[in-house]
Amino acid sequence: MDSRPIGVFDSGIGGLTVAGVLSRRLPDESVVYLGDTARVPYGTKSPDVVRRYAERCAAFLMTQNIKALVVACNTASAHALEHLVHTLAVPVFGVINPGAEAALAQSLSGRVGVVATRGTIDSGAYTRALQQEAHRLNRQVEVCVQPAPVLVPLAEEGLENHPATYALVEEYLKPLLDVGVDTVVLGCTHYPVLRPVFEQVARASGKQVAFTDSGEAVTDSVESAFGKLSLAAAKGATPQHRFYLTDTQPRFSELAERFFGQRLQAALHVDL
Amino acid sequence: MDSRPIGVFDSGIGGLTVAGVLSRRLPDESVVYLGDTARVPYGTKSPDVVRRYAERCAAFLMTQNIKALVVACNTASAHALEHLVHTLAVPVFGVINPGAEAALAQSLSGRVGVVATRGTIDSGAYTRALQQEAHRLNRQVEVCVQPAPVLVPLAEEGLENHPATYALVEEYLKPLLDVGVDTVVLGCTHYPVLRPVFEQVARASGKQVAFTDSGEAVTDSVESAFGKLSLAAAKGATPQHRFYLTDTQPRFSELAERFFGQRLQAALHVDL
Repeated sequence: MDSRPIGVFDSGIGGLTVAGVLSRRLPDESVVYLGDTARVPYGTKSPDVVRRYAERCAAFLMTQNIKALVVACNTASAHALEHLVHTLAVPVFGVINPGAEAALAQSLSGRVGVVATRGTIDSGAYTRALQQEAHRLNRQVEVCVQPAPVLVPLAEEGLENHPATYALVEEYLKPLLDVGVDTVVLGCTHYPVLRPVFEQVARASGKQVAFTDSGEAVTDSVESAFGKLSLAAAKGATPQHRFYLTDTQPRFSELAERFFGQRLQAALHVDL
Repeated sequence: MDSRPIGVFDSGIGGLTVAGVLSRRLPDESVVYLGDTARVPYGTKSPDVVRRYAERCAAFLMTQNIKALVVACNTASAHALEHLVHTLAVPVFGVINPGAEAALAQSLSGRVGVVATRGTIDSGAYTRALQQEAHRLNRQVEVCVQPAPVLVPLAEEGLENHPATYALVEEYLKPLLDVGVDTVVLGCTHYPVLRPVFEQVARASGKQVAFTDSGEAVTDSVESAFGKLSLAAAKGATPQHRFYLTDTQPRFSELAERFFGQRLQAALHVDL
């Protein structure tokens, strides 16, 4: 039994979708969330800069006595995960490998699509993770990637149901549907909010496609590791969540409701 | 005659539209551009953070021996201009006051719309500038503001002609057209790229609306100040432009072509 919190960080508030799944599926666990809103977005920044920022986020969360770290940011998972795994004294989870594993577990055809920000796609991290996982399973995989850069602000603005969002999701999904993927990884922490639009566009195309998102997948990994390492909190514990941001986030309360799944009071501020 | 360059900075590459107008309309002048791409966007950051970043940008440009500074970023103009005007030894121009002046010069009804990022709208800077200018002219002004946050990534992605862009511009412009503005300030340095879409949506509505953008307006101010202060470069001088970014910008050359108006080689890097 370990009552210490799980640390979760993202470049901004997208990672709240991951923290939300964690806290719903592991309701005894406390979460300390850090959104690096002073430096958001990471996706357009270079690998070195992202690594430096991720180190600072991790160092802050370590001062919060965390028992595990979830890098709930695809860009930071792509560029900084290995470094964090090697330098931190707690288990570290990224969102890319779990997403890739979940996608391959779901795909029958081995033809997998990845929708993500340009930075995540350009890093090649999902393609590598899917190929490694396929190799491990002694399977074939064909990866089709699609950058989808404008979806983050659409999700943050609450425009899930706007025709503009539908038009863009349609455009981004079309090349993947055309090559016949049967599974699509939603490779950005903002995209779970848009999942109904993805599903609607896929249905309208008449094709059978399953979607996997990293919040669900990383929660599987965390749960399984906590079992092995005896890190789970006591059953029936009352979780204490804390939310830190490195800069103000004007509509935090409303965003938290849509991304984390419950209305939160204002976040705490930390200078990093 | 003064052959020193004009310094121009923005949080990212949007200010290239301003630098482009400057260099086309003042073809003898050299421009040193700084895009703070490591910290983009400023629009979601707090006034204090924006001021700190703007100071660093200005300090770097001062080391480049500039004769004037153009703050080609609406957020930085809103939060840092006064501070920079008081601390720098060269004339400093923001984009908000010139935009407001140009809009009032154009508006017959005194009913003026402002479309900008949420940060710029929330700062109230355009409303204040328009009211001050109206007061100075002894006129009435009615200001109608409209945040339009998703247009920046749409412009950067080259989606000017995408139905999603048209749908959003239509949505953002509608409330302004409904209240009968006759002039709309495009209050974000990215929006000149979308100006044809704004004009198309306005035409389709059947209403008469003029648009003003800050690149044109600030160039008027710079030209007039250079005349008074004898700061203009010699006629027929060969301008030497330089472009600095604080982080890599993958598609810089293509973006420069669309925003600055000519294809540029890779930008120089500077750590700030």
